[in-house]
Amino acid sequence: MADAVDELRHLPYEEIEIARVDHHRELRDGLPEAIYGESKTPEQVLAIAKALLGRSDRLIVTRATPEKYELLRREIPDARYNDLARTITVDRVPLPVRPGVAVLCAGTADLPVAEEAAETATIMGAPPVRLYDVGVAGIHRLFDRLDIIRNSKALVVVAGMEGALPSVVAGLARAPVVAVPTSVGYGASFQGLAPLLAMLNACAPGVSVVNIDNGFGAGYLAATINRLAAGD
Amino acid sequence: MADAVDELRHLPYEEIEIARVDHHRELRDGLPEAIYGESKTPEQVLAIAKALLGRSDRLIVTRATPEKYELLRREIPDARYNDLARTITVDRVPLPVRPGVAVLCAGTADLPVAEEAAETATIMGAPPVRLYDVGVAGIHRLFDRLDIIRNSKALVVVAGMEGALPSVVAGLARAPVVAVPTSVGYGASFQGLAPLLAMLNACAPGVSVVNIDNGFGAGYLAATINRLAAGD
Amino acid sequence: MADAVDELRHLPYEEIEIARVDHHRELRDGLPEAIYGESKTPEQVLAIAKALLGRSDRLIVTRATPEKYELLRREIPDARYNDLARTITVDRVPLPVRPGVAVLCAGTADLPVAEEAAETATIMGAPPVRLYDVGVAGIHRLFDRLDIIRNSKALVVVAGMEGALPSVVAGLARAPVVAVPTSVGYGASFQGLAPLLAMLNACAPGVSVVNIDNGFGAGYLAATINRLAAGD
Amino acid sequence: MADAVDELRHLPYEEIEIARVDHHRELRDGLPEAIYGESKTPEQVLAIAKALLGRSDRLIVTRATPEKYELLRREIPDARYNDLARTITVDRVPLPVRPGVAVLCAGTADLPVAEEAAETATIMGAPPVRLYDVGVAGIHRLFDRLDIIRNSKALVVVAGMEGALPSVVAGLARAPVVAVPTSVGYGASFQGLAPLLAMLNACAPGVSVVNIDNGFGAGYLAATINRLAAGD
Amino acid sequence: MADAVDELRHLPYEEIEIARVDHHRELRDGLPEAIYGESKTPEQVLAIAKALLGRSDRLIVTRATPEKYELLRREIPDARYNDLARTITVDRVPLPVRPGVAVLCAGTADLPVAEEAAETATIMGAPPVRLYDVGVAGIHRLFDRLDIIRNSKALVVVAGMEGALPSVVAGLARAPVVAVPTSVGYGASFQGLAPLLAMLNACAPGVSVVNIDNGFGAGYLAATINRLAAGD
Amino acid sequence: MADAVDELRHLPYEEIEIARVDHHRELRDGLPEAIYGESKTPEQVLAIAKALLGRSDRLIVTRATPEKYELLRREIPDARYNDLARTITVDRVPLPVRPGVAVLCAGTADLPVAEEAAETATIMGAPPVRLYDVGVAGIHRLFDRLDIIRNSKALVVVAGMEGALPSVVAGLARAPVVAVPTSVGYGASFQGLAPLLAMLNACAPGVSVVNIDNGFGAGYLAATINRLAAGD
Amino acid sequence: MADAVDELRHLPYEEIEIARVDHHRELRDGLPEAIYGESKTPEQVLAIAKALLGRSDRLIVTRATPEKYELLRREIPDARYNDLARTITVDRVPLPVRPGVAVLCAGTADLPVAEEAAETATIMGAPPVRLYDVGVAGIHRLFDRLDIIRNSKALVVVAGMEGALPSVVAGLARAPVVAVPTSVGYGASFQGLAPLLAMLNACAPGVSVVNIDNGFGAGYLAATINRLAAGD
Amino acid sequence: MADAVDELRHLPYEEIEIARVDHHRELRDGLPEAIYGESKTPEQVLAIAKALLGRSDRLIVTRATPEKYELLRREIPDARYNDLARTITVDRVPLPVRPGVAVLCAGTADLPVAEEAAETATIMGAPPVRLYDVGVAGIHRLFDRLDIIRNSKALVVVAGMEGALPSVVAGLARAPVVAVPTSVGYGASFQGLAPLLAMLNACAPGVSVVNIDNGFGAGYLAATINRLAAGD
Repeated sequence: MADAVDELRHLPYEEIEIARVDHHRELRDGLPEAIYGESKTPEQVLAIAKALLGRSDRLIVTRATPEKYELLRREIPDARYNDLARTITVDRVPLPVRPGVAVLCAGTADLPVAEEAAETATIMGAPPVRLYDVGVAGIHRLFDRLDIIRNSKALVVVAGMEGALPSVVAGLARAPVVAVPTSVGYGASFQGLAPLLAMLNACAPGVSVVNIDNGFGAGYLAATINRLAAGD
Repeated sequence: MADAVDELRHLPYEEIEIARVDHHRELRDGLPEAIYGESKTPEQVLAIAKALLGRSDRLIVTRATPEKYELLRREIPDARYNDLARTITVDRVPLPVRPGVAVLCAGTADLPVAEEAAETATIMGAPPVRLYDVGVAGIHRLFDRLDIIRNSKALVVVAGMEGALPSVVAGLARAPVVAVPTSVGYGASFQGLAPLLAMLNACAPGVSVVNIDNGFGAGYLAATINRLAAGD
Repeated sequence: MADAVDELRHLPYEEIEIARVDHHRELRDGLPEAIYGESKTPEQVLAIAKALLGRSDRLIVTRATPEKYELLRREIPDARYNDLARTITVDRVPLPVRPGVAVLCAGTADLPVAEEAAETATIMGAPPVRLYDVGVAGIHRLFDRLDIIRNSKALVVVAGMEGALPSVVAGLARAPVVAVPTSVGYGASFQGLAPLLAMLNACAPGVSVVNIDNGFGAGYLAATINRLAAGD
Repeated sequence: MADAVDELRHLPYEEIEIARVDHHRELRDGLPEAIYGESKTPEQVLAIAKALLGRSDRLIVTRATPEKYELLRREIPDARYNDLARTITVDRVPLPVRPGVAVLCAGTADLPVAEEAAETATIMGAPPVRLYDVGVAGIHRLFDRLDIIRNSKALVVVAGMEGALPSVVAGLARAPVVAVPTSVGYGASFQGLAPLLAMLNACAPGVSVVNIDNGFGAGYLAATINRLAAGD
Repeated sequence: MADAVDELRHLPYEEIEIARVDHHRELRDGLPEAIYGESKTPEQVLAIAKALLGRSDRLIVTRATPEKYELLRREIPDARYNDLARTITVDRVPLPVRPGVAVLCAGTADLPVAEEAAETATIMGAPPVRLYDVGVAGIHRLFDRLDIIRNSKALVVVAGMEGALPSVVAGLARAPVVAVPTSVGYGASFQGLAPLLAMLNACAPGVSVVNIDNGFGAGYLAATINRLAAGD
Repeated sequence: MADAVDELRHLPYEEIEIARVDHHRELRDGLPEAIYGESKTPEQVLAIAKALLGRSDRLIVTRATPEKYELLRREIPDARYNDLARTITVDRVPLPVRPGVAVLCAGTADLPVAEEAAETATIMGAPPVRLYDVGVAGIHRLFDRLDIIRNSKALVVVAGMEGALPSVVAGLARAPVVAVPTSVGYGASFQGLAPLLAMLNACAPGVSVVNIDNGFGAGYLAATINRLAAGD
Repeated sequence: MADAVDELRHLPYEEIEIARVDHHRELRDGLPEAIYGESKTPEQVLAIAKALLGRSDRLIVTRATPEKYELLRREIPDARYNDLARTITVDRVPLPVRPGVAVLCAGTADLPVAEEAAETATIMGAPPVRLYDVGVAGIHRLFDRLDIIRNSKALVVVAGMEGALPSVVAGLARAPVVAVPTSVGYGASFQGLAPLLAMLNACAPGVSVVNIDNGFGAGYLAATINRLAAGD
Repeated sequence: MADAVDELRHLPYEEIEIARVDHHRELRDGLPEAIYGESKTPEQVLAIAKALLGRSDRLIVTRATPEKYELLRREIPDARYNDLARTITVDRVPLPVRPGVAVLCAGTADLPVAEEAAETATIMGAPPVRLYDVGVAGIHRLFDRLDIIRNSKALVVVAGMEGALPSVVAGLARAPVVAVPTSVGYGASFQGLAPLLAMLNACAPGVSVVNIDNGFGAGYLAATINRLAAGD
């Protein structure tokens, strides 16, 4: 045990005024650092981003408004913005590409979350196949792409409303399904509670669930599984 | 208006010790009287049943235990018991049979509720086609019966867990889908809350929902729609 | 089964940039296509609407803001806006009119949802009788219209607050009651949870429930039942 | 203020092993002492009852099982048991009778709670008129007794399921309506949450609500209002 | 029964474009008509107010913004605005004053709801004693006014946060306590759910509860009880 | 840091078949080990108890049934059982007694939880003053003991139903109040949710809350504060 | 697409009286069939098990009572029972063993769920390392096994109460963490809702969640990921 | 008792127009008065602040916007504003400093609540050590400061998301842990419900919980415990 704890103890981190910026994840895992942009000011996002890029080659900011991107790109000109996903990414030394991830979503309103997942998987070396607008009420649209579903190493399935898509997909797929409930919908959706509960009760094995609207977590997990499947 | 209110006012009913037994529904609609058996003693069920059968030719008791049936059949020998559905039915002058109702369920655990719906539709003259154990995780089992789904006048779709089946069926059907969430399942099912919310958020139009485990209500509604479709 | 699945497989659809636009519903059912406008930009609504109208003669957009209508009518001049219902409708070859639907609501605050139901039923060929502001606290106002309630083929009943109206109406009606809870009210209404639960627990058979504020779903269902009753 | 606080400070009470038995309510208000029997052993109920009857002429025990009654009547032979209400009452010097309270309930399953309210009002001098099994799905049964509803000084209205009866009654009555939700029902009743929320959202003014199944509280309140109306 | 139903049937009401305006409450009870202003436009409020004042001498509008008042007073110059209570009142022939109501509240944040109750009671002839800012954490402030609490005929008790005040007051009072939970507070208050549940579980008999923030309902009920106590 | 982590790493523990029994807490803090008895068999409780007593002089088992005690005392004859608290305690070398803790509860139904807190504090050297049955509806009973409330170093306040007692006590006390909601009550108590929320919203500073029915946690915390106040 | 749908259509299944038994999963994936035993009678479990074993070499029954096992092993003598996990397994041609899965749990009360996960992974060829009783309150116990955590391909982390262990483990691990909330605990655990929500909000990426107490689903998912990592 | 009640009765307070301003807490306890600024206008805050400072030397306003500070400092020039904590403090005769409190938080988004706690403790004489951004996903950051955790007299631990930090800290600490859930996060955080429930279920003894975002309450409690530990 001593070695592991010693390793843990000596992981590098850096104190800046507003946060303890942790560099060990990138060192350890070859993965990008992520900044959750929602509850931070543009100035905070910039300060943390600069600190992280001092040691890391890649970075993703989620829930980023256009104004946060505006500030960021003044000092980090290679930052790229996906306005549907609301992500800022910096990818200076791209990882080798390993295909195998697919991102599906049920309706057009789920696109931002699906795109956040796709951007996350991409920066982790697993640019996904996108199958969008394949909700269960028009199940035939799903069948056109059955070969993709069958051959993926990891699937992210994004759905709001009744959240039924992950069950249907898991019944057709060999690989793990990471289900993401979304807060779109109204009334008895209760801000995503309905699809969250539905997904947790999925009758098909192979489904697990991340937080409502957590495209980042789903993309991260799918890319991690895909990397394992590639033998890394 | 006077006539309608007068009609309403003069509807026959009968006071017995424990209830005001209402005879007008049968007179008005040709429909059976129903007794919800759950919170009544066998003696109460018997007393109400006898009062109702004094004027009506058909009767259904739901949530009926075997012991309630044992007491009942002593005095009402033509009562019939379905132990899966937990229903007691008396049908002295069967209504003319009008096909057109289908009852589907997702898993074997949903059978009692599906059977309650089927018994209810049957006593109302609409003995249903039964499609059981056709959950969305094995969607191919559903496709075998696509013609039934397409040709029904009303569909009862019973499901627990993620409650996805009504959306899938409504995407394939022409007729109204009456969705019944069930309390089977565990954990984040929360006694049927998960499929209830899922069904209320069904992305396919044509779906409406009754109370958790309410097979009676769903069968009643499907048979009513079917009767309308038959021109009654 | 082969035929049904083949039919399903070959249903026409069209990929536009933001959605897979599905044409088969209109072909199959003579029903309008619907666009849920809430979470779409005016530009998205317009693009989908144009794609759909390439094959369909009728269309309804729900939750449409005036600005969405302003953009739409520039390119679709025969689009009509109901600002109370917040619907945009296009109806180029009206369906034959089949009376038989009634829409009731409990209070003035429920009007937008009731009107959404009414617009939906209308474009489906079932322009409804409207009985508005007939809440249960002034039950005599309801009795004036008892003949309408008794003679309808399908009733949409919209209510917020305690959600009691569907039970009362179902006790008086022969036909199915589609109950719509609304999110109006305050405090222990919990954005419509109170009437939703009340309606799911309706003591009168014949009631089923759609999502909170889902006037479209209720109108669609009532018109479908009405069409069945007309022998279609 | 001094006098009031002094009065408060010197109210008599008595310490017995398991409780501080409070005598001042009876002295002050001419009202009975009440023992909530649910979470107490028969021995505890007996001990408290004897201590209270040392100073008070009347007593009500609610949620009392037959075995609690069996023990009690050995030492308190004038105790009376209502097995439907599950109440034990002792009433040694009955209060003068003041009519004016009515107790209504929606279904037979609500009878125990209605009877608990009726027993409570009776021991407080206000034996109520009982209108049972007058649910809103058969609204004509309610109209037969409109004169009672109009002439009461206080109404207890007990209902489970959708909890609609208090709104309807309050729309017809002049007097306050004390609404009692019951935990009967199933599924989306959520042990009485559905009628509780419905009653709190009653659209008719004049309605207030007590806890689920709290017949005692409702009967107490109705009798208190009735006593005020009698000029006490 | 015939007479009562006939009376009910012939109650006057008036259809205006947006509502069925009901005049019978005022005729029957000598009470004011009320308009819930929250979900109505200023124009709707004005139209309904004018229709009501055509037959009634008094009126209260709740949840009224200053702009609604501005419009109203142009055509109804004797309308009066209480900006803390957010009420508009018109009282052309004041009812005889009957003291006996007290309104208490726990904190300054509860004042708007308390004032809504006070305005409602006032227009019904029962201008209340106000005991504000007497929360349970400083219980000595409450004792200063013990005589008022003991001598009132009806008490409105308004509280947010832990909602403890009604229990304490009911333990000191003879008269009914109408408890009003408020949505002030934060976090685990869950918009008033915490005090609502607390009040429903009040350990002191004599407490009943109205909807969160429903000052109007509480004031109406207290004035009704007070009127009964005055022998009306 | 190295020293602290090293200390942590080398804390003694012992693997028995069903658990990793941790001895460091006793060594570090002079506190008793605790076994939560609810979800363990008598045999498991015995095995863990024996392992713990191999190194510790004192032990408390909570949620212990009589049968668990029967088994335990065969091998641990100095084990003591409090059947109201449902605790088993072993205290071989009692800690020096430090007064300063008081345990209050609102009703007799709260006694088991209050006693669990009292037993816990006692074995930690802080046998408490008990003030039981002092609910807020009879606030004068509380005032009799104002000096105890004022002079304690830590107060445990146990209450079900509306959970108001901690606020009232904290308004009178100088010391921290550890509030314990209980699951007694019925209906809208929702198994203790009502008092839990009430206590979290306590308007008096100085109140913090532990889990529903967690007498052990409250007694532990009060004794810990009391020990700090004694200068340990 | 035609091929995939055709494959889907021709998957073998078999209708027995109570279920449509699906054989394609085993054929397709080399995985065991599973029977959820909770809501089935021993006879139903036996019938389905026999049908499945007609085509499959391995089988797992979850939530199996001893009596279900007793019946089963009469006809299936090589069935094996794990009474802690409550699983029955039949494994006639074991899959090649691929190490890489670890199952961790926080407390002894979580053992049944952890064992269900372990049994599931084992029959799928991934017998796991077990790290039990390593809750976050004694974090040093976790560090002893840091090498296991770092080197696993998939981790199942089972926890009740506050559900914190998955976050801590995911902060230390490279591989995906499948979090399983358990319903052990009491009070504000709300039957597992507390750890469920905590795990869904895990601050460490790499965590996904299955249903409360769903050890089977977690073991299935971990073994699937492990198989992918082994290059299958 | 008489003395204590008399003392209570004669505590000074002062009626200003909007509130009963209570001076006895400061007199009694040497503690600051606090104003909860959220639901008060700047003018109300100023009026109460001036009244309180007429008798007290220190004051804290929480949830104070910059505009409230702007108004305040015109008349109270020695008021100080912490814009991260959103607190205004006045501290004219600082209390003697007693170290011993530590404030920890899990993420940068929790800083405002942590700072509110720190400001509160500071004005009460216990300026805390701050350990910020030490979330459980990077547990090694916490170990760097193990000596602080071990030597504090009271710890405030602030966390959103999964709320795991208090359990981990309490497993390492000797002193009481006051846990503060925050409403930061999204989706299944449900505005802080997730960490609230997690903290209430903390498996480590010594943890108690205050309301979501209630930094003031936590700082107050920690300083109170610290003062007791200092022998005051």
